[in-house]
Amino acid sequence: MNYEPSNPSFAAEVEQSFAKQAVMMAIGAELVTVAPGVVQISLPYRSDLTQQNGYLHAGIVTTVADSACGYAAYTLMAPNSEVLSVEFKVNLLRPAKGEAFLAVAEVLKPGRTLTVVRADVFANPHSERVLVATMLGTMMCLRR
Amino acid sequence: MNYEPSNPSFAAEVEQSFAKQAVMMAIGAELVTVAPGVVQISLPYRSDLTQQNGYLHAGIVTTVADSACGYAAYTLMAPNSEVLSVEFKVNLLRPAKGEAFLAVAEVLKPGRTLTVVRADVFANPHSERVLVATMLGTMMCLRR
Amino acid sequence: MNYEPSNPSFAAEVEQSFAKQAVMMAIGAELVTVAPGVVQISLPYRSDLTQQNGYLHAGIVTTVADSACGYAAYTLMAPNSEVLSVEFKVNLLRPAKGEAFLAVAEVLKPGRTLTVVRADVFANPHSERVLVATMLGTMMCLRR
Amino acid sequence: MNYEPSNPSFAAEVEQSFAKQAVMMAIGAELVTVAPGVVQISLPYRSDLTQQNGYLHAGIVTTVADSACGYAAYTLMAPNSEVLSVEFKVNLLRPAKGEAFLAVAEVLKPGRTLTVVRADVFANPHSERVLVATMLGTMMCLRR
Repeated sequence: MNYEPSNPSFAAEVEQSFAKQAVMMAIGAELVTVAPGVVQISLPYRSDLTQQNGYLHAGIVTTVADSACGYAAYTLMAPNSEVLSVEFKVNLLRPAKGEAFLAVAEVLKPGRTLTVVRADVFANPHSERVLVATMLGTMMCLRR
Repeated sequence: MNYEPSNPSFAAEVEQSFAKQAVMMAIGAELVTVAPGVVQISLPYRSDLTQQNGYLHAGIVTTVADSACGYAAYTLMAPNSEVLSVEFKVNLLRPAKGEAFLAVAEVLKPGRTLTVVRADVFANPHSERVLVATMLGTMMCLRR
Repeated sequence: MNYEPSNPSFAAEVEQSFAKQAVMMAIGAELVTVAPGVVQISLPYRSDLTQQNGYLHAGIVTTVADSACGYAAYTLMAPNSEVLSVEFKVNLLRPAKGEAFLAVAEVLKPGRTLTVVRADVFANPHSERVLVATMLGTMMCLRR
Repeated sequence: MNYEPSNPSFAAEVEQSFAKQAVMMAIGAELVTVAPGVVQISLPYRSDLTQQNGYLHAGIVTTVADSACGYAAYTLMAPNSEVLSVEFKVNLLRPAKGEAFLAVAEVLKPGRTLTVVRADVFANPHSERVLVATMLGTMMCLRR
Protein backbone atom coordinates (compact mmCIF):
# COMPACT_ATOMS: atom_id res chain seq x y z
CA MET A 1 0.00 0.00 0.00
CA ASN A 2 1.12 3.54 -0.70
CA TYR A 3 0.52 6.01 2.07
CA GLU A 4 0.93 9.77 2.01
CA PRO A 5 2.41 10.94 5.33
CA SER A 6 0.83 14.09 6.77
CA ASN A 7 3.87 14.89 8.89
CA PRO A 8 6.80 15.90 6.64
CA SER A 9 9.30 15.18 9.42
CA PHE A 10 7.90 11.76 10.27
CA ALA A 11 11.24 9.99 9.83
CA ALA A 12 13.11 12.31 12.16
CA GLU A 13 10.38 12.02 14.76
CA VAL A 14 10.42 8.24 14.66
CA GLU A 15 14.19 8.28 15.07
CA GLN A 16 14.01 10.68 18.01
CA SER A 17 11.33 8.67 19.77
CA PHE A 18 13.12 5.39 19.12
CA ALA A 19 16.29 6.85 20.64
CA LYS A 20 14.32 7.52 23.83
CA GLN A 21 13.14 3.90 24.14
CA ALA A 22 15.79 2.77 26.60
CA VAL A 23 14.75 -0.86 26.20
CA MET A 24 15.78 -0.82 22.53
CA MET A 25 19.37 -0.06 23.50
CA ALA A 26 19.19 -2.55 26.39
CA ILE A 27 18.33 -5.42 24.04
CA GLY A 28 20.48 -4.23 21.12
CA ALA A 29 17.61 -3.39 18.74
CA GLU A 30 18.24 -0.98 15.87
CA LEU A 31 15.97 1.01 13.61
CA VAL A 32 16.63 -0.21 10.06
CA THR A 33 13.87 1.22 7.86
CA VAL A 34 11.45 4.12 8.29
CA ALA A 35 9.07 4.74 5.38
CA PRO A 36 5.42 5.84 5.17
CA GLY A 37 3.48 3.05 6.90
CA VAL A 38 6.50 0.78 7.21
CA VAL A 39 9.13 0.34 9.92
CA GLN A 40 11.77 -2.35 10.33
CA ILE A 41 13.74 -3.05 13.49
CA SER A 42 16.65 -5.47 13.74
CA LEU A 43 17.70 -7.46 16.78
CA PRO A 44 20.80 -9.62 17.18
CA TYR A 45 20.56 -12.91 19.06
CA ARG A 46 21.63 -12.54 22.67
CA SER A 47 21.94 -15.52 24.99
CA ASP A 48 20.88 -13.37 27.96
CA LEU A 49 17.42 -12.75 26.44
CA THR A 50 16.38 -16.35 26.06
CA GLN A 51 13.78 -18.73 27.40
CA GLN A 52 14.54 -22.17 28.82
CA ASN A 53 15.63 -23.77 25.52
CA GLY A 54 18.05 -21.04 24.50
CA TYR A 55 15.72 -19.40 21.98
CA LEU A 56 14.83 -15.72 22.15
CA HIS A 57 11.97 -15.25 24.63
CA ALA A 58 8.57 -14.57 23.03
CA GLY A 59 8.36 -11.35 25.05
CA ILE A 60 11.55 -10.02 23.46
CA VAL A 61 10.27 -10.94 20.01
CA THR A 62 7.11 -9.06 20.98
CA THR A 63 9.12 -6.06 22.19
CA VAL A 64 10.63 -5.42 18.77
CA ALA A 65 7.39 -6.26 16.93
CA ASP A 66 5.44 -3.82 19.12
CA SER A 67 7.91 -0.97 18.61
CA ALA A 68 7.94 -1.65 14.87
CA CYS A 69 4.12 -1.55 14.79
CA GLY A 70 3.94 1.59 16.90
CA TYR A 71 6.42 3.47 14.75
CA ALA A 72 4.88 2.24 11.49
CA ALA A 73 1.61 3.77 12.70
CA TYR A 74 3.46 6.90 13.87
CA THR A 75 4.84 7.59 10.38
CA LEU A 76 1.30 8.33 9.23
CA MET A 77 0.13 10.40 12.19
CA ALA A 78 -0.33 14.17 12.16
CA PRO A 79 2.42 16.44 13.52
CA ASN A 80 2.40 16.84 17.32
CA SER A 81 1.06 13.36 17.92
CA GLU A 82 2.14 10.63 20.25
CA VAL A 83 1.66 6.93 19.64
CA LEU A 84 0.46 4.38 22.16
CA SER A 85 -0.09 0.62 21.91
CA VAL A 86 -3.72 -0.29 22.59
CA GLU A 87 -3.41 -4.04 22.15
CA PHE A 88 -1.68 -6.69 20.09
CA LYS A 89 -1.95 -10.37 19.37
CA VAL A 90 1.08 -12.47 18.59
CA ASN A 91 1.30 -15.95 17.11
CA LEU A 92 4.60 -17.68 17.76
CA LEU A 93 5.10 -19.74 14.63
CA ARG A 94 8.53 -21.28 15.09
CA PRO A 95 11.29 -21.22 17.75
CA ALA A 96 13.09 -17.86 17.65
CA LYS A 97 16.49 -19.30 16.85
CA GLY A 98 19.07 -17.69 14.63
CA GLU A 99 21.88 -15.15 14.77
CA ALA A 100 19.70 -12.14 13.98
CA PHE A 101 16.06 -11.13 13.72
CA LEU A 102 14.11 -8.53 11.81
CA ALA A 103 10.66 -7.16 12.68
CA VAL A 104 8.86 -5.80 9.61
CA ALA A 105 5.74 -3.78 10.40
CA GLU A 106 3.25 -2.43 7.89
CA VAL A 107 0.12 -0.36 8.42
CA LEU A 108 -3.01 -2.19 7.35
CA LYS A 109 -5.49 0.61 8.07
CA PRO A 110 -4.47 4.11 9.15
CA GLY A 111 -6.95 6.24 11.07
CA ARG A 112 -7.20 9.56 12.82
CA THR A 113 -7.41 7.89 16.22
CA LEU A 114 -6.66 4.20 15.69
CA THR A 115 -4.28 2.53 13.28
CA VAL A 116 -4.17 -1.22 12.68
CA VAL A 117 -0.75 -2.68 11.96
CA ARG A 118 0.73 -6.07 11.14
CA ALA A 119 4.29 -7.15 11.86
CA ASP A 120 6.21 -10.23 10.85
CA VAL A 121 9.38 -11.22 12.70
CA PHE A 122 11.97 -13.14 10.69
CA ALA A 123 15.04 -15.04 11.84
CA ASN A 124 18.21 -14.81 9.75
CA PRO A 125 16.83 -11.98 7.61
CA HIS A 126 19.95 -11.85 5.45
CA SER A 127 20.08 -15.51 4.44
CA GLU A 128 17.14 -17.98 4.27
CA ARG A 129 14.70 -15.84 6.27
CA VAL A 130 12.32 -17.80 8.48
CA LEU A 131 9.07 -16.36 9.79
CA VAL A 132 9.09 -16.91 13.56
CA ALA A 133 6.20 -14.73 14.72
CA THR A 134 3.44 -12.47 13.47
CA MET A 135 1.65 -9.62 15.26
CA LEU A 136 -1.70 -7.93 14.60
CA GLY A 137 -2.13 -4.84 16.71
CA THR A 138 -3.96 -1.58 17.29
CA MET A 139 -2.11 1.69 17.85
CA MET A 140 -3.60 4.95 19.11
CA CYS A 141 -2.80 8.54 18.25
CA LEU A 142 -2.70 11.04 21.09
CA ARG A 143 -2.52 14.75 20.27
CA ARG A 144 0.11 16.57 22.34
CA MET B 1 -10.84 -22.83 40.26
CA ASN B 2 -9.28 -25.79 42.01
CA TYR B 3 -7.05 -27.90 39.87
CA GLU B 4 -5.47 -31.25 40.71
CA PRO B 5 -1.90 -31.34 39.35
CA SER B 6 -0.93 -34.61 37.67
CA ASN B 7 2.78 -34.01 38.19
CA PRO B 8 3.66 -34.20 41.90
CA SER B 9 6.90 -32.27 41.37
CA PHE B 10 5.28 -29.48 39.35
CA ALA B 11 6.63 -26.72 41.61
CA ALA B 12 10.23 -27.88 41.41
CA GLU B 13 9.97 -28.23 37.63
CA VAL B 14 8.59 -24.72 37.22
CA GLU B 15 11.43 -23.37 39.36
CA GLN B 16 14.05 -25.26 37.39
CA SER B 17 12.69 -24.10 34.05
CA PHE B 18 12.30 -20.51 35.26
CA ALA B 19 15.94 -20.53 36.39
CA LYS B 20 16.93 -21.43 32.81
CA GLN B 21 15.05 -18.45 31.32
CA ALA B 22 18.05 -16.12 31.07
CA VAL B 23 15.80 -13.18 30.19
CA MET B 24 14.12 -13.37 33.60
CA MET B 25 17.44 -12.66 35.31
CA ALA B 26 18.32 -10.01 32.71
CA ILE B 27 15.18 -8.00 33.50
CA GLY B 28 15.15 -8.73 37.24
CA ALA B 29 11.97 -10.85 37.26
CA GLU B 30 11.39 -13.27 40.14
CA LEU B 31 9.09 -16.22 40.62
CA VAL B 32 6.79 -15.36 43.53
CA THR B 33 4.00 -17.95 43.58
CA VAL B 34 3.68 -21.43 42.07
CA ALA B 35 0.43 -23.24 42.79
CA PRO B 36 -1.78 -25.58 40.73
CA GLY B 37 -2.96 -23.46 37.79
CA VAL B 38 -1.52 -20.23 39.20
CA VAL B 39 1.85 -18.53 38.83
CA GLN B 40 2.93 -15.05 39.88
CA ILE B 41 6.08 -13.27 38.70
CA SER B 42 7.34 -9.96 40.09
CA LEU B 43 9.31 -7.34 38.22
CA PRO B 44 10.91 -4.19 39.63
CA TYR B 45 10.81 -0.97 37.63
CA ARG B 46 14.00 -0.44 35.68
CA SER B 47 14.68 2.75 33.75
CA ASP B 48 16.65 0.80 31.13
CA LEU B 49 13.56 -1.22 30.10
CA THR B 50 11.34 1.70 29.21
CA GLN B 51 9.62 3.15 26.19
CA GLN B 52 9.84 6.81 25.15
CA ASN B 53 7.87 8.22 28.10
CA GLY B 54 9.78 6.42 30.81
CA TYR B 55 7.15 3.72 31.40
CA LEU B 56 7.96 0.04 31.22
CA HIS B 57 7.83 -1.06 27.56
CA ALA B 58 4.74 -3.13 26.63
CA GLY B 59 7.06 -5.88 25.43
CA ILE B 60 8.64 -6.21 28.88
CA VAL B 61 5.20 -6.30 30.50
CA THR B 62 4.38 -9.02 27.96
CA THR B 63 7.57 -10.91 28.78
CA VAL B 64 6.58 -11.45 32.42
CA ALA B 65 2.91 -12.07 31.56
CA ASP B 66 3.89 -14.71 28.99
CA SER B 67 6.22 -16.54 31.36
CA ALA B 68 3.57 -16.41 34.09
CA CYS B 69 0.99 -17.87 31.67
CA GLY B 70 3.34 -20.54 30.41
CA TYR B 71 4.28 -21.71 33.89
CA ALA B 72 0.69 -21.56 35.15
CA ALA B 73 -0.17 -23.97 32.33
CA TYR B 74 2.93 -26.05 33.09
CA THR B 75 1.83 -26.67 36.71
CA LEU B 76 -1.03 -28.79 35.34
CA MET B 77 0.84 -30.70 32.66
CA ALA B 78 1.84 -34.35 32.91
CA PRO B 79 5.37 -35.30 34.00
CA ASN B 80 7.97 -35.16 31.21
CA SER B 81 6.23 -32.32 29.41
CA GLU B 82 7.52 -29.08 28.00
CA VAL B 83 5.48 -25.93 27.62
CA LEU B 84 5.42 -23.64 24.60
CA SER B 85 3.56 -20.39 23.91
CA VAL B 86 1.26 -20.74 20.92
CA GLU B 87 -0.15 -17.22 20.94
CA PHE B 88 -1.27 -14.44 23.24
CA LYS B 89 -3.24 -11.23 23.10
CA VAL B 90 -2.43 -8.32 25.36
CA ASN B 91 -4.49 -5.23 26.13
CA LEU B 92 -2.45 -2.36 27.55
CA LEU B 93 -4.89 -0.72 29.94
CA ARG B 94 -2.82 1.99 31.62
CA PRO B 95 0.78 3.26 31.43
CA ALA B 96 3.12 0.78 33.14
CA LYS B 97 4.37 3.21 35.75
CA GLY B 98 5.23 2.32 39.31
CA GLU B 99 8.10 0.96 41.37
CA ALA B 100 7.19 -2.67 40.98
CA PHE B 101 4.93 -4.93 38.93
CA LEU B 102 3.29 -8.30 39.44
CA ALA B 103 2.02 -10.66 36.74
CA VAL B 104 -0.71 -12.97 38.04
CA ALA B 105 -1.57 -15.85 35.70
CA GLU B 106 -4.40 -18.32 36.14
CA VAL B 107 -5.43 -21.26 33.99
CA LEU B 108 -8.86 -20.84 32.49
CA LYS B 109 -9.07 -24.20 30.72
CA PRO B 110 -6.45 -26.91 31.07
CA GLY B 111 -6.12 -29.49 28.32
CA ARG B 112 -3.98 -32.44 27.30
CA THR B 113 -2.50 -30.50 24.40
CA LEU B 114 -3.65 -26.88 24.77
CA THR B 115 -4.19 -24.82 27.91
CA VAL B 116 -5.83 -21.40 27.89
CA VAL B 117 -4.52 -18.93 30.46
CA ARG B 118 -5.26 -15.40 31.58
CA ALA B 119 -2.78 -13.03 33.21
CA ASP B 120 -3.24 -9.64 34.78
CA VAL B 121 -0.26 -7.36 35.34
CA PHE B 122 -0.50 -4.93 38.26
CA ALA B 123 1.64 -1.94 39.14
CA ASN B 124 2.49 -1.32 42.79
CA PRO B 125 1.16 -4.71 43.88
CA HIS B 126 1.91 -4.04 47.56
CA SER B 127 0.03 -0.73 47.89
CA GLU B 128 -2.93 0.47 45.76
CA ARG B 129 -2.50 -2.09 42.96
CA VAL B 130 -3.35 -0.80 39.49
CA LEU B 131 -4.18 -3.11 36.59
CA VAL B 132 -1.90 -2.07 33.72
CA ALA B 133 -2.31 -4.96 31.27
CA THR B 134 -4.19 -8.20 30.71
CA MET B 135 -3.22 -11.21 28.60
CA LEU B 136 -5.30 -14.04 27.16
CA GLY B 137 -3.13 -16.78 25.72
CA THR B 138 -2.83 -20.36 24.54
CA MET B 139 -0.05 -22.64 25.78
CA MET B 140 0.91 -26.02 24.32
CA CYS B 141 2.16 -29.16 25.97
CA LEU B 142 4.95 -31.07 24.27
CA ARG B 143 5.85 -34.55 25.52
CA ARG B 144 9.60 -35.02 25.94
CA MET C 1 -16.03 -3.68 39.94
CA ASN C 2 -18.50 -0.93 40.72
CA TYR C 3 -18.97 1.61 37.99
CA GLU C 4 -20.87 4.89 38.08
CA PRO C 5 -22.71 5.39 34.78
CA SER C 6 -22.54 8.92 33.37
CA ASN C 7 -25.66 8.43 31.26
CA PRO C 8 -28.76 8.13 33.50
CA SER C 9 -30.75 6.48 30.72
CA PHE C 10 -28.08 3.93 29.83
CA ALA C 11 -30.41 0.96 30.25
CA ALA C 12 -33.07 2.34 27.92
CA GLU C 13 -30.47 3.24 25.33
CA VAL C 14 -28.96 -0.24 25.39
CA GLU C 15 -32.41 -1.75 24.95
CA GLN C 16 -33.23 0.56 22.05
CA SER C 17 -29.97 -0.16 20.28
CA PHE C 18 -30.27 -3.91 20.90
CA ALA C 19 -33.75 -3.84 19.37
CA LYS C 20 -32.21 -2.37 16.20
CA GLN C 21 -29.68 -5.20 15.84
CA ALA C 22 -31.64 -7.28 13.37
CA VAL C 23 -29.22 -10.17 13.72
CA MET C 24 -30.17 -10.62 17.39
CA MET C 25 -33.74 -11.38 16.41
CA ALA C 26 -32.57 -13.55 13.50
CA ILE C 27 -30.60 -15.83 15.81
CA GLY C 28 -33.03 -15.67 18.73
CA ALA C 29 -30.77 -13.75 21.15
CA GLU C 30 -32.31 -11.83 24.03
CA LEU C 31 -31.06 -9.12 26.35
CA VAL C 32 -31.15 -10.54 29.86
CA THR C 33 -29.22 -8.14 32.10
CA VAL C 34 -28.19 -4.50 31.70
CA ALA C 35 -26.28 -3.00 34.63
CA PRO C 36 -23.39 -0.51 34.85
CA GLY C 37 -20.48 -2.22 33.11
CA VAL C 38 -22.30 -5.55 32.76
CA VAL C 39 -24.53 -6.99 30.03
CA GLN C 40 -25.84 -10.52 29.59
CA ILE C 41 -27.36 -11.92 26.40
CA SER C 42 -29.03 -15.32 26.13
CA LEU C 43 -29.17 -17.54 23.07
CA PRO C 44 -31.11 -20.76 22.62
CA TYR C 45 -29.55 -23.64 20.71
CA ARG C 46 -30.70 -23.72 17.10
CA SER C 47 -29.79 -26.51 14.73
CA ASP C 48 -29.70 -24.07 11.80
CA LEU C 49 -26.80 -22.11 13.34
CA THR C 50 -24.36 -24.99 13.68
CA GLN C 51 -21.01 -26.07 12.31
CA GLN C 52 -20.30 -29.49 10.84
CA ASN C 53 -20.64 -31.45 14.12
CA GLY C 54 -23.95 -29.96 15.17
CA TYR C 55 -22.49 -27.53 17.72
CA LEU C 56 -23.20 -23.81 17.61
CA HIS C 57 -20.79 -22.19 15.13
CA ALA C 58 -17.96 -20.20 16.74
CA GLY C 59 -19.09 -17.16 14.76
CA ILE C 60 -22.54 -17.27 16.36
CA VAL C 61 -20.99 -17.62 19.80
CA THR C 62 -18.88 -14.60 18.86
CA THR C 63 -21.94 -12.67 17.68
CA VAL C 64 -23.57 -12.74 21.11
CA ALA C 65 -20.28 -12.21 22.94
CA ASP C 66 -19.49 -9.17 20.78
CA SER C 67 -22.91 -7.58 21.33
CA ALA C 68 -22.65 -8.25 25.05
CA CYS C 69 -19.21 -6.61 25.15
CA GLY C 70 -20.33 -3.64 23.08
CA TYR C 71 -23.35 -2.97 25.25
CA ALA C 72 -21.44 -3.50 28.50
CA ALA C 73 -19.09 -0.75 27.31
CA TYR C 74 -22.05 1.36 26.18
CA THR C 75 -23.59 1.39 29.68
CA LEU C 76 -20.64 3.50 30.84
CA MET C 77 -20.44 5.91 27.91
CA ALA C 78 -21.54 9.52 28.00
CA PRO C 79 -24.98 10.49 26.66
CA ASN C 80 -25.14 10.90 22.86
CA SER C 81 -22.51 8.29 22.23
CA GLU C 82 -22.38 5.37 19.85
CA VAL C 83 -20.43 2.21 20.41
CA LEU C 84 -18.30 0.39 17.87
CA SER C 85 -16.26 -2.81 18.07
CA VAL C 86 -12.59 -2.15 17.38
CA GLU C 87 -11.33 -5.70 17.79
CA PHE C 88 -11.82 -8.85 19.80
CA LYS C 89 -10.08 -12.11 20.49
CA VAL C 90 -11.99 -15.27 21.23
CA ASN C 91 -10.74 -18.56 22.67
CA LEU C 92 -13.05 -21.49 21.97
CA LEU C 93 -12.65 -23.60 25.09
CA ARG C 94 -15.16 -26.41 24.60
CA PRO C 95 -17.70 -27.46 21.93
CA ALA C 96 -20.71 -25.12 22.08
CA LYS C 97 -23.21 -27.84 22.83
CA GLY C 98 -26.23 -27.43 25.07
CA GLU C 99 -29.81 -26.26 24.97
CA ALA C 100 -29.07 -22.65 25.81
CA PHE C 101 -26.16 -20.25 26.07
CA LEU C 102 -25.45 -17.09 28.01
CA ALA C 103 -22.87 -14.42 27.18
CA VAL C 104 -21.77 -12.49 30.26
CA ALA C 105 -19.76 -9.34 29.50
CA GLU C 106 -18.03 -7.14 32.04
CA VAL C 107 -16.03 -3.96 31.55
CA LEU C 108 -12.42 -4.35 32.60
CA LYS C 109 -11.30 -0.79 31.93
CA PRO C 110 -13.66 2.00 30.87
CA GLY C 111 -12.26 4.98 29.00
CA ARG C 112 -13.37 8.15 27.30
CA THR C 113 -12.52 6.74 23.87
CA LEU C 114 -11.70 3.06 24.35
CA THR C 115 -13.21 0.53 26.74
CA VAL C 116 -11.77 -2.94 27.28
CA VAL C 117 -14.30 -5.68 27.97
CA ARG C 118 -14.26 -9.39 28.75
CA ALA C 119 -17.06 -11.82 28.01
CA ASP C 120 -17.53 -15.43 28.97
CA VAL C 121 -20.03 -17.61 27.11
CA PHE C 122 -21.60 -20.43 29.09
CA ALA C 123 -23.63 -23.41 27.91
CA ASN C 124 -26.60 -24.52 30.00
CA PRO C 125 -26.52 -21.41 32.18
CA HIS C 126 -29.40 -22.60 34.35
CA SER C 127 -28.00 -26.00 35.30
CA GLU C 128 -24.29 -27.02 35.47
CA ARG C 129 -22.98 -24.05 33.48
CA VAL C 130 -20.02 -24.86 31.24
CA LEU C 131 -17.63 -22.20 29.95
CA VAL C 132 -17.45 -22.66 26.18
CA ALA C 133 -15.70 -19.47 25.05
CA THR C 134 -14.10 -16.31 26.33
CA MET C 135 -13.64 -12.95 24.59
CA LEU C 136 -11.28 -10.06 25.28
CA GLY C 137 -12.17 -7.02 23.20
CA THR C 138 -11.82 -3.30 22.67
CA MET C 139 -14.85 -1.07 22.14
CA MET C 140 -14.82 2.54 20.93
CA CYS C 141 -17.02 5.46 21.83
CA LEU C 142 -18.12 7.76 19.02
CA ARG C 143 -19.78 11.05 19.88
CA ARG C 144 -22.92 11.70 17.87
CA MET D 1 3.12 -19.56 -0.51
CA ASN D 2 2.91 -22.90 -2.30
CA TYR D 3 1.70 -25.76 -0.22
CA GLU D 4 1.63 -29.45 -1.09
CA PRO D 5 -1.58 -31.01 0.26
CA SER D 6 -1.13 -34.41 1.90
CA ASN D 7 -4.77 -35.36 1.38
CA PRO D 8 -5.48 -35.86 -2.35
CA SER D 9 -9.23 -35.44 -1.81
CA PHE D 10 -8.90 -32.25 0.26
CA ALA D 11 -11.26 -30.27 -1.98
CA ALA D 12 -14.06 -32.80 -1.80
CA GLU D 13 -13.69 -33.07 1.97
CA VAL D 14 -13.86 -29.30 2.41
CA GLU D 15 -17.00 -29.20 0.29
CA GLN D 16 -18.63 -32.03 2.25
CA SER D 17 -17.85 -30.46 5.59
CA PHE D 18 -18.96 -27.00 4.42
CA ALA D 19 -22.27 -28.49 3.30
CA LYS D 20 -22.80 -29.75 6.86
CA GLN D 21 -22.31 -26.29 8.39
CA ALA D 22 -25.99 -25.39 8.67
CA VAL D 23 -25.14 -21.82 9.59
CA MET D 24 -23.54 -21.24 6.17
CA MET D 25 -26.85 -21.94 4.47
CA ALA D 26 -28.73 -19.91 7.09
CA ILE D 27 -26.70 -16.78 6.33
CA GLY D 28 -26.38 -17.39 2.59
CA ALA D 29 -22.62 -18.03 2.53
CA GLU D 30 -21.10 -19.95 -0.36
CA LEU D 31 -17.80 -21.70 -0.88
CA VAL D 32 -16.07 -19.94 -3.76
CA THR D 33 -12.47 -21.17 -3.84
CA VAL D 34 -10.74 -24.23 -2.38
CA ALA D 35 -7.03 -24.53 -3.11
CA PRO D 36 -4.07 -25.79 -1.07
CA GLY D 37 -3.85 -23.42 1.91
CA VAL D 38 -6.47 -21.04 0.52
CA VAL D 39 -10.25 -20.86 0.91
CA GLN D 40 -12.66 -18.13 -0.11
CA ILE D 41 -16.25 -17.79 1.09
CA SER D 42 -18.76 -15.28 -0.26
CA LEU D 43 -21.63 -13.71 1.64
CA PRO D 44 -24.37 -11.48 0.26
CA TYR D 45 -25.58 -8.51 2.30
CA ARG D 46 -28.73 -9.35 4.23
CA SER D 47 -30.64 -6.76 6.22
CA ASP D 48 -31.61 -9.38 8.81
CA LEU D 49 -27.99 -9.96 9.81
CA THR D 50 -27.13 -6.40 10.74
CA GLN D 51 -26.16 -4.41 13.79
CA GLN D 52 -27.86 -1.18 14.88
CA ASN D 53 -26.63 0.96 11.95
CA GLY D 54 -27.65 -1.43 9.21
CA TYR D 55 -24.16 -2.82 8.61
CA LEU D 56 -23.40 -6.53 8.74
CA HIS D 57 -22.81 -7.51 12.38
CA ALA D 58 -19.17 -8.14 13.30
CA GLY D 59 -20.15 -11.62 14.45
CA ILE D 60 -21.45 -12.53 10.99
CA VAL D 61 -18.28 -11.17 9.39
CA THR D 62 -16.41 -13.35 11.88
CA THR D 63 -18.56 -16.38 11.04
CA VAL D 64 -17.44 -16.43 7.40
CA ALA D 65 -13.86 -15.51 8.26
CA ASP D 66 -13.66 -18.33 10.79
CA SER D 67 -15.04 -20.94 8.39
CA ALA D 68 -12.68 -19.71 5.66
CA CYS D 69 -9.72 -20.00 8.07
CA GLY D 70 -10.78 -23.42 9.29
CA TYR D 71 -11.15 -24.83 5.80
CA ALA D 72 -7.94 -23.21 4.54
CA ALA D 73 -6.17 -25.08 7.35
CA TYR D 74 -8.14 -28.24 6.55
CA THR D 75 -6.90 -28.32 2.94
CA LEU D 76 -3.41 -29.09 4.28
CA MET D 77 -4.33 -31.63 6.94
CA ALA D 78 -3.74 -35.35 6.64
CA PRO D 79 -6.57 -37.66 5.53
CA ASN D 80 -9.00 -38.63 8.31
CA SER D 81 -8.58 -35.35 10.14
CA GLU D 82 -11.09 -32.95 11.59
CA VAL D 83 -10.52 -29.24 12.01
CA LEU D 84 -11.39 -27.17 15.06
CA SER D 85 -11.01 -23.45 15.79
CA VAL D 86 -8.76 -22.87 18.78
CA GLU D 87 -8.92 -19.08 18.82
CA PHE D 88 -9.04 -16.06 16.56
CA LYS D 89 -8.56 -12.34 16.74
CA VAL D 90 -10.48 -9.97 14.50
CA ASN D 91 -9.87 -6.30 13.79
CA LEU D 92 -12.90 -4.50 12.40
CA LEU D 93 -11.36 -1.97 10.05
CA ARG D 94 -14.35 -0.33 8.39
CA PRO D 95 -18.15 -0.63 8.58
CA ALA D 96 -19.26 -3.83 6.83
CA LYS D 97 -21.42 -2.09 4.25
CA GLY D 98 -21.85 -3.23 0.70
CA GLU D 99 -23.92 -5.60 -1.40
CA ALA D 100 -21.60 -8.55 -1.05
CA PHE D 101 -18.62 -9.72 0.97
CA LEU D 102 -15.75 -12.12 0.43
CA ALA D 103 -13.62 -13.78 3.08
CA VAL D 104 -10.19 -14.77 1.78
CA ALA D 105 -8.23 -17.06 4.09
CA GLU D 106 -4.63 -18.15 3.62
CA VAL D 107 -2.49 -20.45 5.74
CA LEU D 108 0.49 -18.67 7.24
CA LYS D 109 2.05 -21.67 8.96
CA PRO D 110 0.77 -25.23 8.59
CA GLY D 111 1.54 -27.74 11.30
CA ARG D 112 0.81 -31.31 12.28
CA THR D 113 -1.36 -30.19 15.20
CA LEU D 114 -1.79 -26.41 14.88
CA THR D 115 -2.13 -24.28 11.78
CA VAL D 116 -2.04 -20.48 11.83
CA VAL D 117 -4.25 -18.74 9.28
CA ARG D 118 -5.03 -15.19 8.21
CA ALA D 119 -8.26 -14.03 6.61
CA ASP D 120 -9.23 -10.72 5.09
CA VAL D 121 -12.88 -9.86 4.55
CA PHE D 122 -13.65 -7.52 1.67
CA ALA D 123 -16.82 -5.65 0.81
CA ASN D 124 -17.86 -5.38 -2.81
CA PRO D 125 -15.28 -7.92 -3.96
CA HIS D 126 -16.22 -7.56 -7.62
CA SER D 127 -15.87 -3.78 -7.91
CA GLU D 128 -13.63 -1.51 -5.75
CA ARG D 129 -12.99 -4.06 -3.00
CA VAL D 130 -12.74 -2.56 0.48
CA LEU D 131 -11.04 -4.37 3.35
CA VAL D 132 -13.53 -4.38 6.24
CA ALA D 133 -11.98 -6.87 8.66
CA THR D 134 -8.95 -9.07 9.18
CA MET D 135 -8.60 -12.24 11.24
CA LEU D 136 -5.53 -14.00 12.65
CA GLY D 137 -6.40 -17.40 14.06
CA THR D 138 -5.21 -20.80 15.18
CA MET D 139 -6.80 -24.01 13.91
CA MET D 140 -6.29 -27.50 15.31
CA CYS D 141 -6.16 -30.86 13.62
CA LEU D 142 -7.91 -33.76 15.31
CA ARG D 143 -7.29 -37.28 14.03
CA ARG D 144 -10.48 -39.25 13.60
